[in-house]
Amino acid sequence: MRNLSLLTDFYELTMMQGYFLSEKRENVVFDYFIRKNPFKGGYTIFAGLEPLLDELSNISFGKGELEYLEDTGLFKPEFLEYLKGFTFSGDLYAVKEGEIVFPNEPVVRVEGNLMETQLIESLLLNFLNFQSLIATKTARIVHAAENKPVLEFGLRRAQGQDGAISAARASYIAGIAATSNTLAGKMYGIPAKGTMAHSWVMSFDSELESFREYAKIYPENCILLVDTYDTLKSGVPNAIKIFKDLQKQGVDDFGIRLDSGDLEYLSKRAREMLDDANCQEAKIFASSELDEKIVEELVDKNSPIDAWGIGTKLITANPDPALSGVYKLVGRENNGKFQPVIKVSNNPVKMTNPGIKNVMRFYDRDGMMKADLIYDENEEDELRNRIDNKDRIRFHHPSIEYAHFDMTDYKYTEKQLKPVMKDGKIIQNHHNLDKLQKHCHDQMHSLHSTHKRFLHPHIYKVSLSNKLNEMKKRLIAEHKKDESF
Amino acid sequence: MRNLSLLTDFYELTMMQGYFLSEKRENVVFDYFIRKNPFKGGYTIFAGLEPLLDELSNISFGKGELEYLEDTGLFKPEFLEYLKGFTFSGDLYAVKEGEIVFPNEPVVRVEGNLMETQLIESLLLNFLNFQSLIATKTARIVHAAENKPVLEFGLRRAQGQDGAISAARASYIAGIAATSNTLAGKMYGIPAKGTMAHSWVMSFDSELESFREYAKIYPENCILLVDTYDTLKSGVPNAIKIFKDLQKQGVDDFGIRLDSGDLEYLSKRAREMLDDANCQEAKIFASSELDEKIVEELVDKNSPIDAWGIGTKLITANPDPALSGVYKLVGRENNGKFQPVIKVSNNPVKMTNPGIKNVMRFYDRDGMMKADLIYDENEEDELRNRIDNKDRIRFHHPSIEYAHFDMTDYKYTEKQLKPVMKDGKIIQNHHNLDKLQKHCHDQMHSLHSTHKRFLHPHIYKVSLSNKLNEMKKRLIAEHKKDESF
Repeated sequence: MRNLSLLTDFYELTMMQGYFLSEKRENVVFDYFIRKNPFKGGYTIFAGLEPLLDELSNISFGKGELEYLEDTGLFKPEFLEYLKGFTFSGDLYAVKEGEIVFPNEPVVRVEGNLMETQLIESLLLNFLNFQSLIATKTARIVHAAENKPVLEFGLRRAQGQDGAISAARASYIAGIAATSNTLAGKMYGIPAKGTMAHSWVMSFDSELESFREYAKIYPENCILLVDTYDTLKSGVPNAIKIFKDLQKQGVDDFGIRLDSGDLEYLSKRAREMLDDANCQEAKIFASSELDEKIVEELVDKNSPIDAWGIGTKLITANPDPALSGVYKLVGRENNGKFQPVIKVSNNPVKMTNPGIKNVMRFYDRDGMMKADLIYDENEEDELRNRIDNKDRIRFHHPSIEYAHFDMTDYKYTEKQLKPVMKDGKIIQNHHNLDKLQKHCHDQMHSLHSTHKRFLHPHIYKVSLSNKLNEMKKRLIAEHKKDESF
Repeated sequence: MRNLSLLTDFYELTMMQGYFLSEKRENVVFDYFIRKNPFKGGYTIFAGLEPLLDELSNISFGKGELEYLEDTGLFKPEFLEYLKGFTFSGDLYAVKEGEIVFPNEPVVRVEGNLMETQLIESLLLNFLNFQSLIATKTARIVHAAENKPVLEFGLRRAQGQDGAISAARASYIAGIAATSNTLAGKMYGIPAKGTMAHSWVMSFDSELESFREYAKIYPENCILLVDTYDTLKSGVPNAIKIFKDLQKQGVDDFGIRLDSGDLEYLSKRAREMLDDANCQEAKIFASSELDEKIVEELVDKNSPIDAWGIGTKLITANPDPALSGVYKLVGRENNGKFQPVIKVSNNPVKMTNPGIKNVMRFYDRDGMMKADLIYDENEEDELRNRIDNKDRIRFHHPSIEYAHFDMTDYKYTEKQLKPVMKDGKIIQNHHNLDKLQKHCHDQMHSLHSTHKRFLHPHIYKVSLSNKLNEMKKRLIAEHKKDESF
């Protein structure tokens, strides 16, 4: 396994040495959160946590790493000596993978000393941003496909080998039925699937011969690619000849794949041709530069497509290839006392929410998500009491003063961030990915459809508790009067 | 090292078994080429070859891989036995990394038996598409920055760990001065650089204290981040205090980094403030969601920015996160005789160029690139003779009949594809990345600026030779009359 201890921005290491030499050993708290939903969408799906935990628990600086750092000439022997014995010993609290999350609420909280928490910033952002991005893209496509299976076919256009492998994992959590990526199949137990390529058809003297040979070898789940020459004049008629033979052998698990042309027109014409030939059981797979909007449109138009193969635009999260997840200091120990910290900005939505926080998700009687409340962990007991008593709960807008609402008609709540790492040790066994997929699927069903709309989705409310709102106002006011900087 | 033999689309393996069981052992030829330049640009920079060659020469199926395949229930014992002894034994011809390439001309040619050439398709596409994409994006940014250094800061938003590491390699070939990615620095000898983060500033009681502490530890190359609180009211004045101290110590290698706000306004105001304080030697670094178009605009407006840090949009190739590179069958052995193959499409630009081909690049007397000619390798001697005699050369448009031009006033030519792998063995030692960077830099200087324009660039001509044009027309005509499919 590749040692990823140096998969960090160089400044994390120079700052880390700076803290070391300045004898800054205090404990601090960082939050990971996203600034906005990708794809102008209404939600984000969180993923990438367990692979990150594996890496965090393995960080160590071996001979090669230390020699490299020494050769830069920037690091002092005493710091390199410290790195030699370094392990990450912090605590992490996180929401579950496959969970729906929203902008500006904490998704992962990291507690530890300044040096170790600074070091892991880039690694954490790299893992969580990418996998959450792909999980979100996938959830959108799976939603558009309604109940039809979506297959992930992106390996050849992915951003590097890991861009394919991690993405297959994230997309499985978010609901794909299978991947074309064999290695991801092996590593994560994701079903690996595939049909045939144009080169198969072209390597024979005729399309019919190529189909016949394929069906001989793979009579089960025989999906024939019909667009190498002419989909309706040649591909579908040749496929029908093969299907009639398969029917005689008692096989009924076959179909065609359309990979070019107008998929609504071709799928409807191909369906008619297959039905006319008494091949009702033949399935139609569609691929060809698809994304959630094209799938939605084709489903709306009742295109008889039974399964979707989505490659490039899923695996690279086109057109938003990066997630805006950030890792911000929200608190630090000062003379032995914990102090919440805020990043003040002229842009109010860029102000961070200070302190050690958690999120309470409120559900209605139908099990649908209503709103999220960010609160200070110190007020948890009080909040719990109010919730248990079904008391009125106040929700404050995170940046607009005096904008708030009250809620009383909630059915139950869920606390979102739970401990996942303690003193650098992973607390629980990794989840089975099928369970995470089920969790994501259930979550998506508890999110109202208006939030899932692609165009101008309904904005889900994420608010601050009374105490957190007061603390934030107080810290901003202190900054305003503080001229010391 | 991770075994990447299974980093392949599952259908490559099922087709491979199909060829095996059908006893199709013939030799074939595949071309890798791009369909269009990314970013609506005028060129593409090729990268990713040497890491691919390393993987190809290492392909093998171990116990774990074979057991996984066996468990799918789709593979026969005799095929698994064949895989057990499998190595890739094909030949590759390729252009050099860092070279400029254009749509529809061969960039890599793979020759080998049908099974091995099919197996490697996904791996080859994954490596070459991504690295070429990032090299192209980087070349655009480096071009926009004119002679100022560009630093790659993308790790935290990259698509996975390898999306960061491979991308740093590709962007170094295309001209970045340094990367923030420490691991890529170590792996590839790329200078690793960094400044400081907002969390450094926030971990001290005041901005000034944080700057002072940093300058004490890193007096050389001391770049202070000035936008944590207020860039012009607090950040720059505090930085100036530190620089005056550094000047007294005889240090003159310092600067500021602007990471938010209007970079033209702030860089001009900051420059004035620095100059007024007699800190003319202070450099201004700029970062903050930059891409080639913003850099070009800021340079046009004479913003006094001395170095550029580019993260997200470079590392994810926003807004075109995938390159349209494809791998197409162009020839096969048939009864012992080589036969060129064409993929016929209703869309003429999607028709492939058949046969075993190479590309001759024509330069003018100033060493500027004039046009590329794709030719059949069989006509090389004849073409060489004409070139040596400075004879007129005919260039045919690849899809529009009767569109052609002649060239006589060329100064010299370069043959583009050269052997890089023979019988599965790498032919030459890997290039030093600095040499590839130099090659890319020189190539970019030999490309006329009109091709480098971001808006509607001048299209560089890629044409077919007489013989290739005739062969293509003949094969299309044969397909048209052939009803056998």
